[in-house]
Amino acid sequence: MLSYAGISTFARAPLASLDEEWRADAAVLGIPYDIALGFRPGARFAPRALRDASLRYAVPPEGLWDWHTQTTLLQGRTLRDVGDVDLPSLEPQLAQARIQAAARDVRARCQVPLFLGGDHSVSYPLLCAFDDVEDLHVVQLDAHLDFTDVRDGTRWSNSSPFRRATEEMPNLSHITTVGLRGLRSDREAVTAARARGHTLVHADSVAADGSLGTHTLPRGKSVYLSIDVDVFDPSIVSGTSSPEVDGLTYRQVAALIRETAAHNTIIGIDCMELSPALDSSQLSALVVARLLVETLGVVLR
Amino acid sequence: MLSYAGISTFARAPLASLDEEWRADAAVLGIPYDIALGFRPGARFAPRALRDASLRYAVPPEGLWDWHTQTTLLQGRTLRDVGDVDLPSLEPQLAQARIQAAARDVRARCQVPLFLGGDHSVSYPLLCAFDDVEDLHVVQLDAHLDFTDVRDGTRWSNSSPFRRATEEMPNLSHITTVGLRGLRSDREAVTAARARGHTLVHADSVAADGSLGTHTLPRGKSVYLSIDVDVFDPSIVSGTSSPEVDGLTYRQVAALIRETAAHNTIIGIDCMELSPALDSSQLSALVVARLLVETLGVVLR
Amino acid sequence: MLSYAGISTFARAPLASLDEEWRADAAVLGIPYDIALGFRPGARFAPRALRDASLRYAVPPEGLWDWHTQTTLLQGRTLRDVGDVDLPSLEPQLAQARIQAAARDVRARCQVPLFLGGDHSVSYPLLCAFDDVEDLHVVQLDAHLDFTDVRDGTRWSNSSPFRRATEEMPNLSHITTVGLRGLRSDREAVTAARARGHTLVHADSVAADGSLGTHTLPRGKSVYLSIDVDVFDPSIVSGTSSPEVDGLTYRQVAALIRETAAHNTIIGIDCMELSPALDSSQLSALVVARLLVETLGVVLR
Amino acid sequence: MLSYAGISTFARAPLASLDEEWRADAAVLGIPYDIALGFRPGARFAPRALRDASLRYAVPPEGLWDWHTQTTLLQGRTLRDVGDVDLPSLEPQLAQARIQAAARDVRARCQVPLFLGGDHSVSYPLLCAFDDVEDLHVVQLDAHLDFTDVRDGTRWSNSSPFRRATEEMPNLSHITTVGLRGLRSDREAVTAARARGHTLVHADSVAADGSLGTHTLPRGKSVYLSIDVDVFDPSIVSGTSSPEVDGLTYRQVAALIRETAAHNTIIGIDCMELSPALDSSQLSALVVARLLVETLGVVLR
Amino acid sequence: MLSYAGISTFARAPLASLDEEWRADAAVLGIPYDIALGFRPGARFAPRALRDASLRYAVPPEGLWDWHTQTTLLQGRTLRDVGDVDLPSLEPQLAQARIQAAARDVRARCQVPLFLGGDHSVSYPLLCAFDDVEDLHVVQLDAHLDFTDVRDGTRWSNSSPFRRATEEMPNLSHITTVGLRGLRSDREAVTAARARGHTLVHADSVAADGSLGTHTLPRGKSVYLSIDVDVFDPSIVSGTSSPEVDGLTYRQVAALIRETAAHNTIIGIDCMELSPALDSSQLSALVVARLLVETLGVVLR
Amino acid sequence: MLSYAGISTFARAPLASLDEEWRADAAVLGIPYDIALGFRPGARFAPRALRDASLRYAVPPEGLWDWHTQTTLLQGRTLRDVGDVDLPSLEPQLAQARIQAAARDVRARCQVPLFLGGDHSVSYPLLCAFDDVEDLHVVQLDAHLDFTDVRDGTRWSNSSPFRRATEEMPNLSHITTVGLRGLRSDREAVTAARARGHTLVHADSVAADGSLGTHTLPRGKSVYLSIDVDVFDPSIVSGTSSPEVDGLTYRQVAALIRETAAHNTIIGIDCMELSPALDSSQLSALVVARLLVETLGVVLR
Repeated sequence: MLSYAGISTFARAPLASLDEEWRADAAVLGIPYDIALGFRPGARFAPRALRDASLRYAVPPEGLWDWHTQTTLLQGRTLRDVGDVDLPSLEPQLAQARIQAAARDVRARCQVPLFLGGDHSVSYPLLCAFDDVEDLHVVQLDAHLDFTDVRDGTRWSNSSPFRRATEEMPNLSHITTVGLRGLRSDREAVTAARARGHTLVHADSVAADGSLGTHTLPRGKSVYLSIDVDVFDPSIVSGTSSPEVDGLTYRQVAALIRETAAHNTIIGIDCMELSPALDSSQLSALVVARLLVETLGVVLR
Repeated sequence: MLSYAGISTFARAPLASLDEEWRADAAVLGIPYDIALGFRPGARFAPRALRDASLRYAVPPEGLWDWHTQTTLLQGRTLRDVGDVDLPSLEPQLAQARIQAAARDVRARCQVPLFLGGDHSVSYPLLCAFDDVEDLHVVQLDAHLDFTDVRDGTRWSNSSPFRRATEEMPNLSHITTVGLRGLRSDREAVTAARARGHTLVHADSVAADGSLGTHTLPRGKSVYLSIDVDVFDPSIVSGTSSPEVDGLTYRQVAALIRETAAHNTIIGIDCMELSPALDSSQLSALVVARLLVETLGVVLR
Repeated sequence: MLSYAGISTFARAPLASLDEEWRADAAVLGIPYDIALGFRPGARFAPRALRDASLRYAVPPEGLWDWHTQTTLLQGRTLRDVGDVDLPSLEPQLAQARIQAAARDVRARCQVPLFLGGDHSVSYPLLCAFDDVEDLHVVQLDAHLDFTDVRDGTRWSNSSPFRRATEEMPNLSHITTVGLRGLRSDREAVTAARARGHTLVHADSVAADGSLGTHTLPRGKSVYLSIDVDVFDPSIVSGTSSPEVDGLTYRQVAALIRETAAHNTIIGIDCMELSPALDSSQLSALVVARLLVETLGVVLR
Repeated sequence: MLSYAGISTFARAPLASLDEEWRADAAVLGIPYDIALGFRPGARFAPRALRDASLRYAVPPEGLWDWHTQTTLLQGRTLRDVGDVDLPSLEPQLAQARIQAAARDVRARCQVPLFLGGDHSVSYPLLCAFDDVEDLHVVQLDAHLDFTDVRDGTRWSNSSPFRRATEEMPNLSHITTVGLRGLRSDREAVTAARARGHTLVHADSVAADGSLGTHTLPRGKSVYLSIDVDVFDPSIVSGTSSPEVDGLTYRQVAALIRETAAHNTIIGIDCMELSPALDSSQLSALVVARLLVETLGVVLR
Repeated sequence: MLSYAGISTFARAPLASLDEEWRADAAVLGIPYDIALGFRPGARFAPRALRDASLRYAVPPEGLWDWHTQTTLLQGRTLRDVGDVDLPSLEPQLAQARIQAAARDVRARCQVPLFLGGDHSVSYPLLCAFDDVEDLHVVQLDAHLDFTDVRDGTRWSNSSPFRRATEEMPNLSHITTVGLRGLRSDREAVTAARARGHTLVHADSVAADGSLGTHTLPRGKSVYLSIDVDVFDPSIVSGTSSPEVDGLTYRQVAALIRETAAHNTIIGIDCMELSPALDSSQLSALVVARLLVETLGVVLR
Repeated sequence: MLSYAGISTFARAPLASLDEEWRADAAVLGIPYDIALGFRPGARFAPRALRDASLRYAVPPEGLWDWHTQTTLLQGRTLRDVGDVDLPSLEPQLAQARIQAAARDVRARCQVPLFLGGDHSVSYPLLCAFDDVEDLHVVQLDAHLDFTDVRDGTRWSNSSPFRRATEEMPNLSHITTVGLRGLRSDREAVTAARARGHTLVHADSVAADGSLGTHTLPRGKSVYLSIDVDVFDPSIVSGTSSPEVDGLTYRQVAALIRETAAHNTIIGIDCMELSPALDSSQLSALVVARLLVETLGVVLR
C-alpha cells in the first residue's frame, strides 16, 4: 500500500486492544501529553505524526534491508499498535496513574514496548512500570539532563522525570545520558546526577562514528532506552520544543543505539518531545520514525 | 478521549475489514488518489486529514446535539471505517477498477457509504458501483461542472467524471450541479449538460439560507451526493486545488444537503478535492469533517 | 515609530510594575497559560502576539479616528502595560491563585483592566478578582458555552470557567453568551445555564448589524466582558484552538461591544483563545488587537 | 498547457520588449518595488506571484466565458507582457524616474496598460506618465486613503502617492476612493482630500451588489483605475501588508470595476500591495489574478 | 536586474522556441510531471521554482567567479531556456512520447541540455533521446537506486526509470549510482543492478571531499548525469518527496560533478524530485539552482 | 519566568532610555531597517525575533553555565535593552544619521554595545560611531564580502557597508572577513579589499574546531565584531535573505568569537540579516540569540 494510504498505525502494525489477549515481539503505545513543557507546546500531536511517518517504513514480510549494515531487520517479528492512553486533560497525577497502568499492560504482552510521547515528563510514569526490574539501567539520549528538582514551581515538568524516578525507584541503578549541551543547564541537577554516579556525556565527546572515547555505555544490563528527539542536531530534527545546536547526527544516534542493544537487554524504549507543527516539511517525523523502526530492528535482532 | 488522541478513524468509528461480515448504517472508505488533477496536487492526503479532523466530532452514545436545528444527530447509528482502497500508482484504469470494486463491497454492507477522495475523477468509478440503481440522480455541489469531454489530452481527469458516468451508466438520469462560478468554464461541457437536461445552478442563485429560487432540487429520488469542497467559499475552505471566490457559505451548503436528504433517499456520498497542505491552519479539514458528520446525521435521521 | 519597531507593549502603552504606585484609565495584563485546552495548544503565545500586533494601533496624542463611527477614540486616556503574570508550569491551582492576585492588583489601579489570555479557563480566576462587585453581569462572546461541569476528567479546563465562577461567586448574577454554534455542545451545560436564567444567543440570531432581535443585552449593570476569539468567523480569525464556522463578523462583534458599553459599566475585559501559530499570516492577531483597542476606546469614551 | 507549466507571463501573453516595435490592446508591466511600505514587506514578489497565478486564466482563442455575466471576455484581444522595470535598490528618486519612463513607453504601445506593483507609492510615478490626459480621473479601490503629506519622515511612502500626484499633476481633476475603513486614518489627509472635492466612500457604504447609494462613480471620463488589494476583505486576500477587516467581497469589487468601465474610458490600471509570502495557500494571488484578467476583459469589451 | 525582478527564465537565459532555429552551448527544458511519485507530490512545480531561484545566479558577461575553485565559470557561454514540455495530464505513455521528442529537439540544438523535472520517472524518456550515443554511461546521484521492476502495480513509477532504460537501450552500458542509503531498498533491484555490473556507492563511502575510495567514476566516456535532489542531506534540501538522512553535503556533490566532468564528456544533465512546497524557506531551490549553474559552468569549461 | 512569558527585552535585560543616565556592562539597541537588501526582505523584524528568542537565555543571578567550556557566563554582569532606533521609512541618509547618533549614545553608557539589525548596510552608520577608536579593527563573520562599490544603482546597499566605512573612517585599519563562499562574488570588491591588506578567509579554510590555519585573527587590537548570520550553514540558520551552502557550524562560529575575544578588546558587536519569516520553526532566531548571549558572556568575562 502506498505510503500515504490507509489507517495510520505504527509501521502498519495491526491494532490491538489492551482488553484482549495477545503477544507480540514489540508493541507501540502513544502518550499524547504535553502540558509539562516549559516552552513550545505541540508534542501531544507526536504519536499521530510518528504513526503517519512510519508508514514509509512499513515492514514487508521479507523484512527491511539496511544498506548501511547490510543486514535485514524485523523479518518475522510481530508488532502491534495499541493506540494511545486515554488521558485526562490538566490532571498530572491522574495522567501519571493511567500512563503507568497502560505501560504495565503493554509490557506484560511483549518483549519490548515502544512508547511514543509526549513531553519528557512522561518517562517518569513509564519507568515506574519497570519497578520490578533488578538493577535497571537507563540510557538517555538527550540534549538536556532532565534531572532538575523543581522548575517554575513544579516537580513534575519535563525537566524532572529522571530525578523523580531515582527518588521513587530503588531498582533504578544508573543513568547514562549522552548528547548533553547548551547554555541552560541546571548546575544543581548536574551535581546531583554526578553524586549518584551517573554517566554524563557531552555531545562534543561523541565521535563521528558514535563511539564515546573514555565514556562507556552499560554492558550486560537490563536497559530502558529513552530518546529525546532534541538529542539530534536541529538541522535534521527542528520539530522539537527546545532545540539545541551542535547536536548528534543520525549516524551517531543510530550507532549509540546499536551499541547499546548489542551488549544489553533492551526492555523498553521511549521517544519524546517531537513537536510536529514546528517542522513544516515533516522531516523531523520522518527521521524519528525511521530511527524507531531501525531501533526495533536492532533490538529484536 | 481528547480530540488529538487515539488512532484516527472517521469520527472514531470502529475499523472494519471488507474481508469480514458486518453491517452498519454508514461506512467510510478513503480513496487517496490525486493524479488526475490539472493544478495543485495533494488530495491524496485528504482521507487522512479528514479522519484526523473528524475526531473533533466523534459521536458520543447520546448523539451530537446541533444548536442550529435543535435536534440530535446520529444517536444509535452504527458507523464503520473500512480504511482506504489499496491503489496502484499511475495506472488510472487499474485504479478505477479497484475503486469500483471496493465501493460495491462497501455498498453491500451499509445503508449509506461515505467516500473520501481524492480528486473528483474518482466519482466516476464510484458512481459505477451504483449502476443497478434505477433512475439514479446526482446532486453535485461544486464550483465546476466536471463535465468536460477531453482535457489536456485525457478523458479521465477530474474535469470529466460526470461526462464519463453519463456515457457509461444508462441508469444515471439527471445531475443537479449547484455552486457553479468562475471564468474557466468549458462551454462545450455546459452545452452538453444542458442538452441532457441537467440542472445547472450558479452560486449567485443560491439564497443566503440555501434555497434555490426558480431552480429545484430532485424530489423522491435515489440520490448520490457528490461534494467538491471547492463549492465552499475559499475563505473557509482554502485547502483545495482550484479555489474559486464567491462560493457558498457553510450555512448554504448544509441547508442544501438537509433539503436534499429530506426529500430523497441518499444512497451514497462522496467528498472530493480537499488539499490539506494548502491549509496551514487545518480549518478546511475541520470544516469539511464537520459537514460530513452533519451530513451523515441528516441522512440517517 | 514604525509598526514593526520598538519594544512590544500593548498599543505602545508604557510598562508599569505592580510593585509601584500608579493609576491609569486602563491597564493590560497578560496570562500566558494554555494547558487547560482540550485540542490544539498555543494560546500561551497570545499575549506576545497581541502586543506585537497592537503596535499597528498605537494611540497618538490626538486619539484614533474611526471611519465607521466618525468619532475619536482614546484621546487623552492613559493606558499601562503591566506585563504577564509569572506562572508556574503545570500547577493549575497555584496558577489560579497567582492570576487572581495579579488581577486584583491591576483592578486596584485602573478603571478597566484588559486581560490577555491564555485559554478560556483563565476567566475563572480573573472573575474571582471581581467577587466584590454587586450584581455582577458577564457578557461572553463565544462559540462555546464553557459551562461544562467536568470534561475529560477535570473541572478546571477551558470548558468550565463560567460553571466554576457561578458556583464560587454569589455576586455573579447573570451571564449573556452570544455567538453559540456547532455540533459539540454539552447538553447538561445548556440545561444548567438555562436553569440559572442565563441568556444564550445562537450566532444565527445575531443580525448583520449586531442587533439581537428578541434577545437582550444587560442594561445598567456592572459588566465583565469576556471575548473568546472563536466567536469570530474563522475566515477572519483562524488562529484559535477550536474554530467553528458560521461565526460572527467583525462588524457584529464590534456592534455588540459598543451596545454593551453604551448601556452598562464595563469593569473588566478579557480576550481568550488566540493561537498565533495557527495563523501564518498574522491576520487573527491583527484583527483581535484592533478589536481590543477599539473596545478600550468605546469603554473609555 | 497545464496551469503549472511553462514560463510565467501574465495570462500566457507573449513576452515583448520595449526596445522593439509592437502594438497590443493591453500590455502588462511589473514594478517589483516595496521599500516604501511602513509595515510588512514582500510586495516586491507580487509581479511574479501574479504572473504565476494568472496562468490559471490564460485566455484561449475563444475567450473566457463568465458564468456570472454570461458573456465572453477577451476574445480576439491582444495582450503582451513586457516584464519588469529594472529598478535600482534603495534610490527612490531614480526608481520613480525609471518607473515613469517605462510606463510612458508601455502606454505608447497599447490601449490599456496594466501595472503590477509593488507598494502603493508606485502609483505616483505611474500616474505621472498620464500627465497629458485632460481632466484625468482616478478611481482608487483601497482600504486606505493614501493621501498623507508626510509619514515617518518621508513624503514618498505608500501613504502619499495620491497627495504627490495631485500636487504635481494639474490635469488630475478628481479622485474617487472606495473601500475606506479602519482605525488608522490620517485626519489631515481626509480633510485635504475633501477640500479638493474628492469622493470618499467607506466600505460600509457599498451595497452587497457593489452599488454606491448616494455616492457616484465618475461618468464619461478618462479614468485611471488603481486597485490596492487591501480593498478586499482579508478573508479572501490575506496576503497584503496592512489588511483591514470588513472589506469588500470579490462580487463588490468586480461590480465596481464593471460599472466604472461601462461609463468611462479606462486608460490605465494598476494593482498594488499584494504580499505573496503572507498567503501560504496562494489564494490571494489567485483571486487578484482573476480580478485583473476579468478587469482587462470588461475594459476591452 | 535585482534577483526578484523580471521574467523567470533559467539564470536569465533568453527564451527560445523549438519552432525556431538556434544554437547554444546549453539549453534548459522543464518537465513539470510528478504523477509517478509514490509519496508526496509537488515536483511539478520544480521547474518554476528552479527558474525563480536561478535568478540569484544570472550569469554576468564576465562570468561567475567561484571562491572555492578560484576560477571563472560560464564566461562567454550561451544559454537558452526553451520553457516546459506541454504535457497531457494523466497519460504516462503520451507524456513519455512528448518528453522524448522535446529532449531530442533540444539535444539537436546545443552541446549540453539541462532537463528540470519532475519526478525521477522522467529520466527514462529523457534517456531514450540519447539512444544513438555509443557506450552511454550514466552517473546517477541519488539516495535511491530507482531500478525497481514493478512498484505498487506499475512499471513506470519514479522507482523504475533506469530499469526501463537498460531494458530498452542497448547502448546504455553502465550506471554509477552514488549516495545510496536508507531502509527502503528493493533487494531484487540491487541484485539486478549488480548483475549488470553497475557501480553502487553507499553515501557513507563518499569521503568528505567527495572522493570515492575504492569505487571509481567512469573515465573517458559519454556521460548522462542524473541528479536526484534527495542525494543531498535533507538538512540542506528538505524539499523533496522522499528525504533520507545522512545524505551528501553540497561540497561532496559538487566535487563528484567536477570529477565526472573533468574526465568524461557530459552529454546531458537532469535534475529531479525537487518539491518546492515542502521547503517553506526556499533553501532547497536556492541550493539546487546554484548546483545546476555551477554544473553548467564546469561542464562548459 | 517561563520562556514564553513577559515583555520581550533582550535576555530579560531591564529596559533603559537614552534620555536617562545609567551605566551597564552591555546594552542592546535594535535597528529594524531592511530596505537596503537586494533579495528577500524581512530583517526589519529581526530585533523583535531576537528579543523573543533570547528569553530562552535570560541570565539568572548565578550566570549561565556552559557545558562546552565548563565555565559560568555573565554572572554579575549588567545588561540593558534600550529598544530600537526610531527610523524614518525610505530615507537612507536620515536613517543613517539617526542610527549613528543612537549608537554613539549607547556606546557612551556601556563597555560593549550589541546592535541588532537590520540588513548589513546598517553596519556603516554603526561603525561611524566608533570613529574615535585608534587603529580600529573589524572582524566580520560573513558569507559575503560586503565591500562592493556600487550595486544596482546605489552605494548604500547591504553589499557596501565596509567599503563606505573604509572610505570615511581613517581610523579603520583592517578588516578580517571569515566565512566567504559562493558564486556571486564581486571581483572588483575582492581586489579592492586585498589591496587594502584585508584578511579574506574562505569558509573551507576554517577547521572543524574553528581554527584558521595559515590565516590569523587580529591580536591586541580594539575590535568591532560584525556577525552576518549568513556566515552560518543554512541548515541551522535558514532565516536569512541570501543563504549560502557550505557555511560554518555553530561550533566554528563560537570558537572564532572566543578566540577573537580572548586576544583583543571587543568594543562593539553587531548581528545582521536575520529574516525571521523565512524560518517557520524559529530555529534561526533561537540559534542566533544563543550565540549573542554566549558572545556577551565571553566578551564580558
